[in-house]
Amino acid sequence: MAGFTNRHRSRNIDNSGFGVNSSAEGGRLVNRDGTTNLKKRGVPFWERISIYHTLLRMKRSHFFLSILLFYTGINIVFAGIYFMIGVHNLSGVAHSENVLEEVMAAFFFSSQTLTTVGYGHVAPTGFLTNAVASTESLLGILAFAVVTGLIYGRFSRPRAFLMFSDNMLIAPYKEGKALMLRLATYKNNHLTEAEAQMTLAIHINDDGKMVTRFYNLPLEIAKINSLALSWTLVHAITEESPLYQFSKEEIQASKMEVMVYIKAFDDHFSNTVQQRTSYTHSELVYGAKFQPMFERSADGNYTLMELNKINAYEAARLPDELAPVSKLQVDAAGDL
Amino acid sequence: MAGFTNRHRSRNIDNSGFGVNSSAEGGRLVNRDGTTNLKKRGVPFWERISIYHTLLRMKRSHFFLSILLFYTGINIVFAGIYFMIGVHNLSGVAHSENVLEEVMAAFFFSSQTLTTVGYGHVAPTGFLTNAVASTESLLGILAFAVVTGLIYGRFSRPRAFLMFSDNMLIAPYKEGKALMLRLATYKNNHLTEAEAQMTLAIHINDDGKMVTRFYNLPLEIAKINSLALSWTLVHAITEESPLYQFSKEEIQASKMEVMVYIKAFDDHFSNTVQQRTSYTHSELVYGAKFQPMFERSADGNYTLMELNKINAYEAARLPDELAPVSKLQVDAAGDL
Amino acid sequence: MAGFTNRHRSRNIDNSGFGVNSSAEGGRLVNRDGTTNLKKRGVPFWERISIYHTLLRMKRSHFFLSILLFYTGINIVFAGIYFMIGVHNLSGVAHSENVLEEVMAAFFFSSQTLTTVGYGHVAPTGFLTNAVASTESLLGILAFAVVTGLIYGRFSRPRAFLMFSDNMLIAPYKEGKALMLRLATYKNNHLTEAEAQMTLAIHINDDGKMVTRFYNLPLEIAKINSLALSWTLVHAITEESPLYQFSKEEIQASKMEVMVYIKAFDDHFSNTVQQRTSYTHSELVYGAKFQPMFERSADGNYTLMELNKINAYEAARLPDELAPVSKLQVDAAGDL
Amino acid sequence: MAGFTNRHRSRNIDNSGFGVNSSAEGGRLVNRDGTTNLKKRGVPFWERISIYHTLLRMKRSHFFLSILLFYTGINIVFAGIYFMIGVHNLSGVAHSENVLEEVMAAFFFSSQTLTTVGYGHVAPTGFLTNAVASTESLLGILAFAVVTGLIYGRFSRPRAFLMFSDNMLIAPYKEGKALMLRLATYKNNHLTEAEAQMTLAIHINDDGKMVTRFYNLPLEIAKINSLALSWTLVHAITEESPLYQFSKEEIQASKMEVMVYIKAFDDHFSNTVQQRTSYTHSELVYGAKFQPMFERSADGNYTLMELNKINAYEAARLPDELAPVSKLQVDAAGDL
Repeated sequence: MAGFTNRHRSRNIDNSGFGVNSSAEGGRLVNRDGTTNLKKRGVPFWERISIYHTLLRMKRSHFFLSILLFYTGINIVFAGIYFMIGVHNLSGVAHSENVLEEVMAAFFFSSQTLTTVGYGHVAPTGFLTNAVASTESLLGILAFAVVTGLIYGRFSRPRAFLMFSDNMLIAPYKEGKALMLRLATYKNNHLTEAEAQMTLAIHINDDGKMVTRFYNLPLEIAKINSLALSWTLVHAITEESPLYQFSKEEIQASKMEVMVYIKAFDDHFSNTVQQRTSYTHSELVYGAKFQPMFERSADGNYTLMELNKINAYEAARLPDELAPVSKLQVDAAGDL
Repeated sequence: MAGFTNRHRSRNIDNSGFGVNSSAEGGRLVNRDGTTNLKKRGVPFWERISIYHTLLRMKRSHFFLSILLFYTGINIVFAGIYFMIGVHNLSGVAHSENVLEEVMAAFFFSSQTLTTVGYGHVAPTGFLTNAVASTESLLGILAFAVVTGLIYGRFSRPRAFLMFSDNMLIAPYKEGKALMLRLATYKNNHLTEAEAQMTLAIHINDDGKMVTRFYNLPLEIAKINSLALSWTLVHAITEESPLYQFSKEEIQASKMEVMVYIKAFDDHFSNTVQQRTSYTHSELVYGAKFQPMFERSADGNYTLMELNKINAYEAARLPDELAPVSKLQVDAAGDL
Repeated sequence: MAGFTNRHRSRNIDNSGFGVNSSAEGGRLVNRDGTTNLKKRGVPFWERISIYHTLLRMKRSHFFLSILLFYTGINIVFAGIYFMIGVHNLSGVAHSENVLEEVMAAFFFSSQTLTTVGYGHVAPTGFLTNAVASTESLLGILAFAVVTGLIYGRFSRPRAFLMFSDNMLIAPYKEGKALMLRLATYKNNHLTEAEAQMTLAIHINDDGKMVTRFYNLPLEIAKINSLALSWTLVHAITEESPLYQFSKEEIQASKMEVMVYIKAFDDHFSNTVQQRTSYTHSELVYGAKFQPMFERSADGNYTLMELNKINAYEAARLPDELAPVSKLQVDAAGDL
Repeated sequence: MAGFTNRHRSRNIDNSGFGVNSSAEGGRLVNRDGTTNLKKRGVPFWERISIYHTLLRMKRSHFFLSILLFYTGINIVFAGIYFMIGVHNLSGVAHSENVLEEVMAAFFFSSQTLTTVGYGHVAPTGFLTNAVASTESLLGILAFAVVTGLIYGRFSRPRAFLMFSDNMLIAPYKEGKALMLRLATYKNNHLTEAEAQMTLAIHINDDGKMVTRFYNLPLEIAKINSLALSWTLVHAITEESPLYQFSKEEIQASKMEVMVYIKAFDDHFSNTVQQRTSYTHSELVYGAKFQPMFERSADGNYTLMELNKINAYEAARLPDELAPVSKLQVDAAGDL
């Protein structure tokens, strides 16, 4: 592994934003879902969290559950307050020996106030109860405003809706081979001017110290006008590639990570959207090629894309890997 | 048709985002309204659809009809629940032998709860009915939040409001001829820094296999500062053009498609807006030119644009089409 | 005037988006407030208007008046419906010989339903009245959603909040003179990366036909990092300028129009904002210079900008205008 | 200080947007929080303020307090109106000798109307009271719309959430030294394509008049792909630097100010975000270097960033500052 960076001509890059000290970094750099594999500490939790970011990225079911819990919680608090003031200040609620019954009446009065439904068969009397109810209805309106904002924010958050193949392949390409992965939009959104960027991170031994090196992996086509169909990203493994002349075993043994970044323009919303993912060495398939995933429809009037075939590949023989190392490569290796 | 791509010097492009295998694509690539002529399958319907995209692009009448149906549906469901619990738990609703009358009362109570109007002449009693009503009013608030977001999203969706001429013309231009089409904004929006891009797709026979080739069609003026008046896109058919030296019959016979993409900056909202359309060979008029569509107002104080003339054209004689093929063209054709 | 375009070396531009046929254009091209001096016709009014654009650009007082009128109108319509069904279907409304009294009761019931306040002392009975009330409360919720969207849209519309000097000046500059105008942000917004663009439009006689020519007017500083203070746009009238060698009378006599376009980045909202204005020959002051408009505060701790001095200028002697015409200019003029 | 600008080769810039006349500017140019140290006058207060900007940048507690005060204020006004009309027009409110009791009843009726909770145990009778209540409920809906917009605007305002080191350091770097400062995102947001720009402002004596000069300070890495970890901005103090050959005392004595501007792309919201700060000479530490602030987690599966160490530095010996002045520098100085 020591000679890894000497077998090719490409220069590593220093503006990846990740550190070069391998011993300070743990595990993969970027997770499959595009988030950074990083935790922060040293400031209090509530300062470290953007509530808006959190609520917008939360799963839909969790989001609505949170709202339900919040709603119930607020009503319990106010039910407690009305009960403490005394339910005799709620007209229409009969005095009861059963505390639970009174609390329940207070709870439902609270919910009718918070949602501003205000039937009125239960209504506040007396200054204190009126003041609390007045405050609660304001709170209800503000909470509603927050929820409206959140729901709109969740709806309108620009997203690329891209699906990626589970694996990246080393596939035959022209006379040689190439690193390939495939992606497609899976919803009824329309992306244009899509750009892709691939970055390789490898851990190498530099004078006994493990360091992380980063390389751009140039793509055959790095920008397309319209991401209407699927898009196969192709990094040709030529002499210029940092992956040149590595055997299957060496590539698989290296703890390499390939970070993929897609940026595009959403036609319908005129927004820039992006998505990010990452593949580690364990997600690499050596000697395979993708199968087609779109065809003409039966009636010949439109094109049909089969999204479940996004990761469909078949074994493919690669050009001989034991070709003599080029002169230049020998020279470079000789420098070690 | 076989020699189509050999008559000109321009190179085809490979980053259109559409595939080159004609037999895998059906019909036109891009529809008149700018959407891609493509269907997706292989993932469940609900994963393939962005509800937000769908509801925002739906016709206005369909959108409000959907809301009305949704509102009625929800009320029917809750009316059923209240009925099953028993309408005697709704104070103010008289017990009736007529089931329909009870259901109707439950339905209207539900609608008063969902919209939080809560008159109160009908009000919930008992734990279960209260709990359902409390949930329904929360649901109403959430649904309202969704509707608010959707309506705002529909309103504020950046749109170019461009109208295009129905036809594209082969018109006389300078000493030769040009492919022309015309567009204008038809609303009171103001676009600046407008850019246009024209792409030609043609199906050709390459060694017995039908393939699709894509070409950029360079425009005389591809960017204008202000899209205040109408804009005629002009692609001069010179030696550099992929359309050079084709006769009327050949151009009309080719299954060619011209995709047009306009991107501009909306002054009022500081948004980038775009619009896309496509013309097929059947929408081409050979030998015609556009008539003027704006003039000075009667009082001389402003300019008047007549939008109904966007597609107004008149016949125009083209320069002789039987000019001798240039030396270079002959040579290129000889390569076949 | 015929020789106007021959006295300078700068080339006119053809991508202004305005037409070159002077006889088809009336009055100034761009109004003081940046809108285009243009009317459209040929499509029905409601298709020509983007309601959202209109409601967002309307004066605040007109906007709220429109809401009030709309609210009253809707209530009148529904009051009519309730009255026709019969107010005996509104519990709590006494039958009255006075039609007006009944209509009034229906009107207020309608407003209580539309706003979902629903006191309930008046409540709907019977299927028809219930159904109408149910529809009205849904309508109220939708209308509220629209209003929420509009108000947010008005609030959040990216605006530059720039004030421009009323006049543009021909002021002494270095050894020669320059066309100058001044602008500043007048609110507590902060603009960065501000870019300015100046375009000159002049009507000239070309072989007996009046045509409009457009020229870019290059600025000494066309982009600044931070638009914190005022910014004076300076177009030096050198040999390269289309305004070179024109006397005061000639410049004032030409029906020239200078269009100014500012684009900047709003720091607080991370939005691109822009503003546009235009000066005609009648707003040009020949031989004047702007007075300073900011100074150190009394306590020396901050800078103080006096916005009311934005147009403050004083007379200034220009360098002699009767300097011999340069050799090159004579040659160019000789070509006529 | 007079010779300051003569010791280096870099040219000052004139597009900073700040004026060069030192005597017209007071104190620092940019505050620590990135706002400009400037006040405006000459137009009325309400025209000078963008209410939306103000309410969006206000502290959260102040914002909610403002809403509470506004709510109370509106209710007091309407309570006054209802009282003046006469509380006998509010059904359910008993006539009372106690004015306060009547006002209180009117106040709570007002709040029930404004929030549209409308219990109905108190309800308006008579034309005037009905009309006022109808207006108030409309007002409530509009106010709610405003609040919804504001809360969403506050939530969704694009922010970088960057923390900067309190100090900038002169640290050893390669063979020489460099000006360094450190920044990191402190929330769960993810920034990509981050760009940094550093501008130096110094007050110098130019022929007896104090002028402000601005210089770009080039950075070793000015753009990074991903701002996942911390980022140390490094301006190497080479011969090209405006800070070259200045001793500790001279640098500290100069009233220099370093303005820092970060622009990045927020991955989650696809927004451009930016943040700005400024360091004055008093925040400079001479001869120190930053300590590492991230490490591998205990289990080795992720990276851990310690945000409380953002400003952690330790003393560091700088290379000898008394090195002979280079030939070129002597020549340049000889020009004085």
